[in-house]
Amino acid sequence: MDAIDLERIARAVAEGDLTPADLIEHLRVESVSDLGYAQVDNERGVRTGVSEIIYGEGKTPSQIAGIVAAMRDAGQRRALITRLDAEKASSLQVLGVDIAYHERARAAVSGPLPDADGNGEILVLTAGTSDLAVADEAVLTARFLGNRVTCVHDVGVAGIHRLLSHARQISHAQVIIAIAGMEGALPSVVAGLASCPVIAVPTSVGYGASFGGIAALLGMLNSCSSGISVVNIDNGFGAAYQASLINHLKAREHDI
Amino acid sequence: MDAIDLERIARAVAEGDLTPADLIEHLRVESVSDLGYAQVDNERGVRTGVSEIIYGEGKTPSQIAGIVAAMRDAGQRRALITRLDAEKASSLQVLGVDIAYHERARAAVSGPLPDADGNGEILVLTAGTSDLAVADEAVLTARFLGNRVTCVHDVGVAGIHRLLSHARQISHAQVIIAIAGMEGALPSVVAGLASCPVIAVPTSVGYGASFGGIAALLGMLNSCSSGISVVNIDNGFGAAYQASLINHLKAREHDI
Amino acid sequence: MDAIDLERIARAVAEGDLTPADLIEHLRVESVSDLGYAQVDNERGVRTGVSEIIYGEGKTPSQIAGIVAAMRDAGQRRALITRLDAEKASSLQVLGVDIAYHERARAAVSGPLPDADGNGEILVLTAGTSDLAVADEAVLTARFLGNRVTCVHDVGVAGIHRLLSHARQISHAQVIIAIAGMEGALPSVVAGLASCPVIAVPTSVGYGASFGGIAALLGMLNSCSSGISVVNIDNGFGAAYQASLINHLKAREHDI
Amino acid sequence: MDAIDLERIARAVAEGDLTPADLIEHLRVESVSDLGYAQVDNERGVRTGVSEIIYGEGKTPSQIAGIVAAMRDAGQRRALITRLDAEKASSLQVLGVDIAYHERARAAVSGPLPDADGNGEILVLTAGTSDLAVADEAVLTARFLGNRVTCVHDVGVAGIHRLLSHARQISHAQVIIAIAGMEGALPSVVAGLASCPVIAVPTSVGYGASFGGIAALLGMLNSCSSGISVVNIDNGFGAAYQASLINHLKAREHDI
Amino acid sequence: MDAIDLERIARAVAEGDLTPADLIEHLRVESVSDLGYAQVDNERGVRTGVSEIIYGEGKTPSQIAGIVAAMRDAGQRRALITRLDAEKASSLQVLGVDIAYHERARAAVSGPLPDADGNGEILVLTAGTSDLAVADEAVLTARFLGNRVTCVHDVGVAGIHRLLSHARQISHAQVIIAIAGMEGALPSVVAGLASCPVIAVPTSVGYGASFGGIAALLGMLNSCSSGISVVNIDNGFGAAYQASLINHLKAREHDI
Amino acid sequence: MDAIDLERIARAVAEGDLTPADLIEHLRVESVSDLGYAQVDNERGVRTGVSEIIYGEGKTPSQIAGIVAAMRDAGQRRALITRLDAEKASSLQVLGVDIAYHERARAAVSGPLPDADGNGEILVLTAGTSDLAVADEAVLTARFLGNRVTCVHDVGVAGIHRLLSHARQISHAQVIIAIAGMEGALPSVVAGLASCPVIAVPTSVGYGASFGGIAALLGMLNSCSSGISVVNIDNGFGAAYQASLINHLKAREHDI
Amino acid sequence: MDAIDLERIARAVAEGDLTPADLIEHLRVESVSDLGYAQVDNERGVRTGVSEIIYGEGKTPSQIAGIVAAMRDAGQRRALITRLDAEKASSLQVLGVDIAYHERARAAVSGPLPDADGNGEILVLTAGTSDLAVADEAVLTARFLGNRVTCVHDVGVAGIHRLLSHARQISHAQVIIAIAGMEGALPSVVAGLASCPVIAVPTSVGYGASFGGIAALLGMLNSCSSGISVVNIDNGFGAAYQASLINHLKAREHDI
Amino acid sequence: MDAIDLERIARAVAEGDLTPADLIEHLRVESVSDLGYAQVDNERGVRTGVSEIIYGEGKTPSQIAGIVAAMRDAGQRRALITRLDAEKASSLQVLGVDIAYHERARAAVSGPLPDADGNGEILVLTAGTSDLAVADEAVLTARFLGNRVTCVHDVGVAGIHRLLSHARQISHAQVIIAIAGMEGALPSVVAGLASCPVIAVPTSVGYGASFGGIAALLGMLNSCSSGISVVNIDNGFGAAYQASLINHLKAREHDI
Repeated sequence: MDAIDLERIARAVAEGDLTPADLIEHLRVESVSDLGYAQVDNERGVRTGVSEIIYGEGKTPSQIAGIVAAMRDAGQRRALITRLDAEKASSLQVLGVDIAYHERARAAVSGPLPDADGNGEILVLTAGTSDLAVADEAVLTARFLGNRVTCVHDVGVAGIHRLLSHARQISHAQVIIAIAGMEGALPSVVAGLASCPVIAVPTSVGYGASFGGIAALLGMLNSCSSGISVVNIDNGFGAAYQASLINHLKAREHDI
Repeated sequence: MDAIDLERIARAVAEGDLTPADLIEHLRVESVSDLGYAQVDNERGVRTGVSEIIYGEGKTPSQIAGIVAAMRDAGQRRALITRLDAEKASSLQVLGVDIAYHERARAAVSGPLPDADGNGEILVLTAGTSDLAVADEAVLTARFLGNRVTCVHDVGVAGIHRLLSHARQISHAQVIIAIAGMEGALPSVVAGLASCPVIAVPTSVGYGASFGGIAALLGMLNSCSSGISVVNIDNGFGAAYQASLINHLKAREHDI
Repeated sequence: MDAIDLERIARAVAEGDLTPADLIEHLRVESVSDLGYAQVDNERGVRTGVSEIIYGEGKTPSQIAGIVAAMRDAGQRRALITRLDAEKASSLQVLGVDIAYHERARAAVSGPLPDADGNGEILVLTAGTSDLAVADEAVLTARFLGNRVTCVHDVGVAGIHRLLSHARQISHAQVIIAIAGMEGALPSVVAGLASCPVIAVPTSVGYGASFGGIAALLGMLNSCSSGISVVNIDNGFGAAYQASLINHLKAREHDI
Repeated sequence: MDAIDLERIARAVAEGDLTPADLIEHLRVESVSDLGYAQVDNERGVRTGVSEIIYGEGKTPSQIAGIVAAMRDAGQRRALITRLDAEKASSLQVLGVDIAYHERARAAVSGPLPDADGNGEILVLTAGTSDLAVADEAVLTARFLGNRVTCVHDVGVAGIHRLLSHARQISHAQVIIAIAGMEGALPSVVAGLASCPVIAVPTSVGYGASFGGIAALLGMLNSCSSGISVVNIDNGFGAAYQASLINHLKAREHDI
Repeated sequence: MDAIDLERIARAVAEGDLTPADLIEHLRVESVSDLGYAQVDNERGVRTGVSEIIYGEGKTPSQIAGIVAAMRDAGQRRALITRLDAEKASSLQVLGVDIAYHERARAAVSGPLPDADGNGEILVLTAGTSDLAVADEAVLTARFLGNRVTCVHDVGVAGIHRLLSHARQISHAQVIIAIAGMEGALPSVVAGLASCPVIAVPTSVGYGASFGGIAALLGMLNSCSSGISVVNIDNGFGAAYQASLINHLKAREHDI
Repeated sequence: MDAIDLERIARAVAEGDLTPADLIEHLRVESVSDLGYAQVDNERGVRTGVSEIIYGEGKTPSQIAGIVAAMRDAGQRRALITRLDAEKASSLQVLGVDIAYHERARAAVSGPLPDADGNGEILVLTAGTSDLAVADEAVLTARFLGNRVTCVHDVGVAGIHRLLSHARQISHAQVIIAIAGMEGALPSVVAGLASCPVIAVPTSVGYGASFGGIAALLGMLNSCSSGISVVNIDNGFGAAYQASLINHLKAREHDI
Repeated sequence: MDAIDLERIARAVAEGDLTPADLIEHLRVESVSDLGYAQVDNERGVRTGVSEIIYGEGKTPSQIAGIVAAMRDAGQRRALITRLDAEKASSLQVLGVDIAYHERARAAVSGPLPDADGNGEILVLTAGTSDLAVADEAVLTARFLGNRVTCVHDVGVAGIHRLLSHARQISHAQVIIAIAGMEGALPSVVAGLASCPVIAVPTSVGYGASFGGIAALLGMLNSCSSGISVVNIDNGFGAAYQASLINHLKAREHDI
Repeated sequence: MDAIDLERIARAVAEGDLTPADLIEHLRVESVSDLGYAQVDNERGVRTGVSEIIYGEGKTPSQIAGIVAAMRDAGQRRALITRLDAEKASSLQVLGVDIAYHERARAAVSGPLPDADGNGEILVLTAGTSDLAVADEAVLTARFLGNRVTCVHDVGVAGIHRLLSHARQISHAQVIIAIAGMEGALPSVVAGLASCPVIAVPTSVGYGASFGGIAALLGMLNSCSSGISVVNIDNGFGAAYQASLINHLKAREHDI
C-alpha cells in the first residue's frame, strides 16, 4: 500500500464508505513477507510514501511472480517492474502475472496507473533521439507514481535554438529531468534557464571515449550550473522517482 | 537582485513604500556587466530566482572584488563567495570588500543573510566528524539562500542506532542533505527511512582506495535505495543550492 | 587427502580399524602429479588443511577430468570444481566423471560432502535477490569444506529493519559472509552489529557506474566499520574458503 | 568499556571484589554521548567486543580530546587514536590528554595496553623495509586489542628463500597479516604455505604504475591462492582489527 | 628561421635588397645543432613553417639558454619558451637571455613579435574567469606565430545568453579556440553556432570528479556537435599552434 | 539546404535561371521540423554551412526514414547517415529510402555526392590495414562534404621508410587525417614532416592494454609534435568534418 | 627474406652452390610492395633480421592472402600469421594459401619451420593451465624464429614447491618467458631465482578485479625483482619475439 | 659478492694468487643477514649474478647504512643505492658511509665502479631533454653492472631525421634502452630500425592527459613494432638491469 492508496482508504473511512475495521484490516499485514529469496518490505509504502519497486535484472520470472503475489497479498494494488527484458516479460505472462509491458522502457506495470496528483508537471528533456529508451523508463515511472509528464525530445546543445524555443515549458516545470549521452551538456544549459530543480541522467549513448556513459556522468557532476543533481547512468527510473518526491512535497511542520 | 529582493521591492510598491518609478530604477541594469575577465549575469536572479554566486578558486582577489562591485552596482545586496581560502579572504578585506569569512566552510558572505522563508527545514546529516567542512559549506549556502537548517553530525552506518535515534527528524525534513566519505553508505540508509528527497554529497574523506572521494561517489550513484540524487565530491554548495530550490517550490501552473 | 580425511584415517589407525601400513600407503603419493598441462599439488591438503580446488574457467573438460583422476589417484576422495558452466559440466559427465552439478553456483562436486565439524556456524547474508548466484557458490564451498551454513537473503540497507530483524543470527554467527552489489553497503552495517569477523564479497550486480562490481568493491574496502576484509568481485568461493579456515581454527601453540 | 574490561568487572563481581551495584554503575552510561561534532558510541564495546577507535584524520585536536574525555566518562579505560600526525599528537598533549605517541605507526594510545589473551599469535610479515610504518600500525593495534604479535620483516618474494626460512612460524600462527607494496605478491606465496587465514594489506610503497598501492591491491584481490582476504591500502589498523577478532574467537552456540 | 622570416628574406632578394649570396648564407646552417642534452632542429622552420618552440618544463635554465643561443646562431630571430615558471624566467634573465616574460601565460618570448599576417582572426573564448591562464598561453602563442586574436572571456553555458550575445564574432572568426574546465560544454554550443573549425581546450579548472580536467576532456571528445577537435588538458599552446596553421593556409596544388 | 546548394541556387538566380521568388520558396521552410522523436534542424546548413548529418546508432529504421523525409521536405537534396549497420540499411531500403550503402564505412548516402570544391586535397593516412574501416568513414564523409581525398594505407611507424616515401604527398596536402590504433604514434611523426594541420583519429585496433583505443587516444593527445588535434576514438566522421571545414575556409573579414 | 635465409643463401654462394648473380636476383625486390590496403616491408628481414609478421586481427582473408603472396614474391619462404581465428584460417585455406593452423595458439604458419640456431634455450613457464593459449602463441613464434623451447606449465606461486622443483631448468635457460594471469606474481619469484632475463607476459585469465589482465600487468610492471621486462596482455607473440632476439645475440663491434 | 667478484676470485685461485682456503673464506657468509628491519640476501650475487641493490625510498639513512655495512661484511665490495634524495645522501655521509652521490640520477654508489665486460654496448636514447634524469639512472646502473654505455639525447619522433641520423649507432648496439615521456613513440620507431632488443622506459614527463607517464606506458605496451619490452614508469634502473643481463649473456648448455 503506497501513499496514494493510503490516502484513498483514509478518505473512504472519513466519508463513511469504509469502516475503521476495514482500515485496520488493510493495514494488518506483516511488515516483511519472507519468501526465502526475497524479503518483501510491506511497510515501505507507509514509511516512505512509495511501495517497493521490483528491479527485474538478475531475478528469475518465478521469483518476480512470487514477489508480485506477496505484494498483492499485502494489499498493494499496483507494481512496477524495471529492467525487464521482453523474454522475461513473456515468461511472466505465461506464469499468469497480469502485466502491461513497455518494451522501449524495458519495464512492466501490474495494476492500473494512478491519477496524477503532484503539485505541478515534470518536464522530461532528451538531448537526442537515441536517448528515448531512458526517457521512456523515466516517463513510465513518473506516471506510475502519480505525476503529469511532458516530454521534449532531441533538444541537444549542438542546435541551441531548438532548446531555447522551449523556454516557456522550462520556466513552468515543477521539476525537470534532463537526459543526455555523449558529453552530457544538456542539463548545464537547462539549469541556467530554469528556476526549478534539474535531475540529470547520463546515458550510455555514444562510443569510444564516452566509456558507456562515463563522459556524460562526469560532465553532469562537474556542471558549471547550479541546481543540478545526478543519478546513475541510464537510470531513468531513479530520476523519475526523485522528481516525483519533489513534485509531491507538501510544506512540513517546522518544529522538528 | 534575487527572488527574495524582487519580492521585497514588489511588495513595497504594492504597499506604497516605493513608487513604480523606483521599481523601474531597480530593474534598469544591463543584463550583463562586462568586466573583461568576467561577464556578470545580472538577470540571473530574475531568471532562476537566485543571483550569481562567485566561485573563488582560480580568481584573483581583485577579480573577485570587481565582480562583487559589479553585482552591487546592479542592485544585488548580498553575495556568496565559495572555495575561498583564508589568504584570499584577507586580501579581499584589504581591498575594502566587506565580507564575513567562514573558515571551515571556506566561504564568505557579503551583505546580510536573508530571513528563512522556505516551505520547511533542510536537514544536514554527516557520516563522521571529518565531514564537517563540507557540511559547513552546505549550511552557509542554505542559509544564504533563505532556508532553515538543522544538522546532525557523526551518524555514519557503522553504529546504525546513532542514525535510527534521529528518525523523527528524518521523517519531518522537507529535504535532506546526506554527506559521507569513505564508502558513502549513509544516503542509502537514510533514503530508506525518509519520504522526502535526499541529496547525497560524497566527500574526499578517506585514504587508499577511496581515491579522493570516488568510492563514496560511486557508492551513492549506485545506491540500492530510491530517492537519492548526487552532486560532485565535496560539493556542499551544490547540494544546498538544489535543496533550497526544492524547499522553495510552489505549486505551479499546470497548463504548460 | 585433506585435513578431514587425514584425521579420519589417523583415528582409524588409533582405533585399530587400519594398520600403520595402511596409513603409510595412503600417504605414499608423489607430492606433485605432473600432467603436462597441470602440476597437481598432492601435498596441499597436508600442508594447508584443504586439498587443491579446481578452477574450471579456461580449462577443457578433458583437462579437468585428468586433474580429478590424478587427485583421486593420490587418495583425495572429493573434489570441488568452480566456475564451471553447464555445457562443460555435461561434457565432464560424458567423459565419465561422476559429479553433482550445481547450476546457479556454477560449480560441481565429485564425491560425498563431508559432515560439518567447524567451531560454529557461517552466516551468509545477501543484499538482494540478484546476489543469489554468488551466495550459492559460497554456500556450496563452505559445505564442501565441512561447515554448517545459514543464509538470509535480500536484507540490503534500503530497508534497514529487514536486516535488524536478524540481529540474533548476526550476534551468534562464528563468521559472516556479507554479499552485496550496487553500493556494497551491507557489510558496513553488519560489522557494526557483529562481534565476529565479516568477509565482504562485492558482486557485479548493478549497472552504469557500478562498473561490474567496482563500486561495491571500493565501498567495502573503504568501509567506516572495523572487522571487515574483502575478496574479489563475485568471489563467493574465496569468501567461503577463508570463512572455513576461521571456523575451523583451534587455539595453537604459543611458543613460535 | 570493551570486552576485556567487561570480563574483568564481571569476574570481580563473581569473586566478591565488586558488588552488583558497582557493576550496574559501570554499565549506566548513555548509549551515545552527543558532542555536537561527534556521537560517541558507548555501547559499541558491549555490542561488538571492542570500543570505538578514533580516526584522527580530519579531526581537530580539541575534537579528539573531547571524544577521549567522553569515552573516559563512559567508563572506557583506554583509547586508540589512529592516523594522528606528530603535530596533532603534541597539541593533544598540550591540551592535557595523556597519550603515548608512536611516531612511525602514526598512532597514539591513551591508558595502559591490556594483557594479551587471544587463542594464539598473530604473525605480521612485510615484503620490504619500506613497509614498516604500516606494519607498526598493525602491531600497535593488535597489542591494543589484546594479542601477542610476532614480526618478520623484509621477506618479499624476490628472494624466496628468505620467506621459506620462516616456514615454521608461518605454520604455527593463528592468523597472518601479510603486508606488501609494489606487486603485492607476498600473501599469495604465504597463503600457499599456511593453514590459517591470511589478511593481506597492500601498501602505497612503489612508484609509477604502482599508482599509490593500486597494483598491490589488485594483486592481492586476484591472488591465485585461497585463504586470503584484503583490506584497504596502508590499512594496518583494519588488518589487525580483523586479525584480533579471529584470534579471539570462541566456539559459539550452534542453534542459531 | 621560420616561414615569416623566409618569406621576408626571399622578398628582399626579389626586390634587390639582398643578394642571392645573402640568401644562401642565411640558409647555410647545420640541420641539427647537437648540444649533447638537446638536438636543436634547425630545418624545422623550413620543413613545417614554424621554428622549434622550447618546452620549458624539466629543463634547467642553462639548458634553455643554450638552446636559445643555438637557435639564434642558426638564424632564428625569435623564440617562444612555454611552461616556464617565474623562477626559471628570472634565472634566464640572470644568465643574460633577453626575454619578455608573461607570468599568467607562464611563457616567455625572446625577440620581437611578428606582424600578424593570417587569413583572418582567431577568436579565443573561455567558459570562466578561472580559465584565463590557459587562454593567455594560447593568445601569446598565436601572436608569436603571426595571428590577430580576439578574446571573449567568461561565456560559459550556465548563462547561455552571454554567449549568444557574441554570435557575430563567432560567425566572423576564421578559427575558434574554445577553452573550458568543469564539464567542458562550451565548444559543443559554439560549434553549433559557428561555420569555422573549433579547437577545444579542456582545462584543469574544477574539483572532485573533474579529475584535473578529465571530465572536460571527455566532454569535448564526445561532443554532439561536429567541427570540433581537441588538444591536451591546459594545452593553450597546442590549440594556438593548430589554429595558426589553419589561419595561414593557402590553397595548394591539387596534383599531388 | 547546405552551403553548396545555397551557392548553386544563388548563382542560378544571378544567371536568371531561377526567379527571386524561386529563391524565397527554397528558403521558406520551418527552422525546425518537429517529428516528436526528433527536432530536425533545417537552418543548420545556412548557419554552419553543412546540413545536419544523421547519427544512425540507437535510432530505429523508421525514425531514420522520417528524418530523411523531413530533411528532403525542407529542401535538402542529400543526406549522410553514419554508424548504420547492414541490417538497418536493408530495413531502410525496404522502407523505400533511396540510399547507397557503404558497408566497411558503416554509412549510407542518400542523393548524389557533390563535386569537390575545397581549396586543396585531404590526405588520409592509416597506420595499418586494420584501420581501414575508420578511414572509409572519413573518406566517404569528406567526399559527401565536397572534398578531394587521397589515401595512403599501412604506413605505421614500425617501418618508418614506408611513411617517408610519401613525403611529397604529406607536404602537398591541405589538411591531413592520420588514423592509427595501438600506440597511435603515426600523427606525431607526420606532424613533424607536414606544414598543414593534422587531425588525429585514434582507433580501437589493438588488444590488451590498448583498452579499446585509449592508448592511441592518450598517445595522440600527448604528442610531442605540434600541429595536431584529436577527435574521438574511431571517429572518422568527425575528423573528416573538421578537415572539410578547414579545406573550405575562405579568408574572412577582419573587422570583427 | 629473413636473417636465416640470407645466411643460407650467402653460404651457398660461398660454397659455389649459387652464383653471385643468383644472390643478386634474390635481393632484387622492391623494398615495399604496395598492395593498396597494405605496404609490405620487404627489407624488414635485412634491416632487423626478422621478416614482417602478419597481424591477422581486423584483416580479411583475402587481404591476408594477398600479403602472403607478396611476401613470397619478394623471396620470403615462410610467414607467420597471428591472431587468426579458426574461421579465417579455413577461408585462407579455401583461397589456396598453404598454411598449418594451430588452433590454441590462434596462429598459422606458411612454409617450413626453420632449424633452431639460437645461443641457448628459451624456457616458457605458465602459472596455470588456463594460460596455455598464450604460451602456445609464444612457443610457436619462438620456433618460427629458430629457437629451441622448453615448457613447464602450472607452476604458479600458490604452490611454490612446484616452481622450486624446476630450479635447474630456470638456472640453465638463456632467456625465460614467464606467463601469468590473476595477480601475475610468477615472474617476480622466477627472476629472483634466475640469472638470465625474464620476459613477463600478463594474461587476461581471472575475473572481477583482474580487469582483463590489468592486475597481472601492473603486478609485473611493479615487480620487486630485478631483471624483468613486460609485454602487452596476452602478447605471447611479442614475448617470444623479444626472447628470440636475445637468444640470437652475437657479441658486436664495440667501436660504435 | 656478485658475478664479477666471483670470477675475479676464481681466476686468482686458478692463477695461484689466492689459495682454495681463501676462496672458501670468501664464500663463507650467512646466506641471509637478518637486521630486524631487513633480511640482506647475501647469496643473491651467486644465484643471479648481481648482488642486491638498495631501494632507498622509504628507508631511513640509518637503515640504509646498516644494510651497506651488512653487505660489506658479507664480502660485497660495491653497492648501488637508488631513489635516494640529496638530503638522505648527506645524512648517509654524515653517518660515515662512503658514497659517491649522483644528484640527477638520484642514486649513490659505494665502492669502485667495475670495468666494463659485456658482449657489446648499451645504447641509451632519450626522446627529450626532460628525460635526462631517468637516463642518468639507467646509465649509472649500467656502468655499476659492468657495461659500456653510449647516450644520444633529444631524438624524439617529432623531428624524425634527428633519430635517423643515428642509424649506425642503432644498428651496432647490443641492446637499446629507449626512454620517452608524453606519447612514448620513440621505441616504436627505434625497434623498426634495430636488430637488437629494445627496452622501453616510459617517463612521467608531460602534463594533462599524460597522467604521470601512463600515456607513454600504454603507448609502449601497445607498440606496433616487435622487439620491445617495457619496464615501469621512470624505471631507468630496471631497464639498465635487464639490459645488463642481456649484454652479459653467454651461450649456455643446451641439454636442460
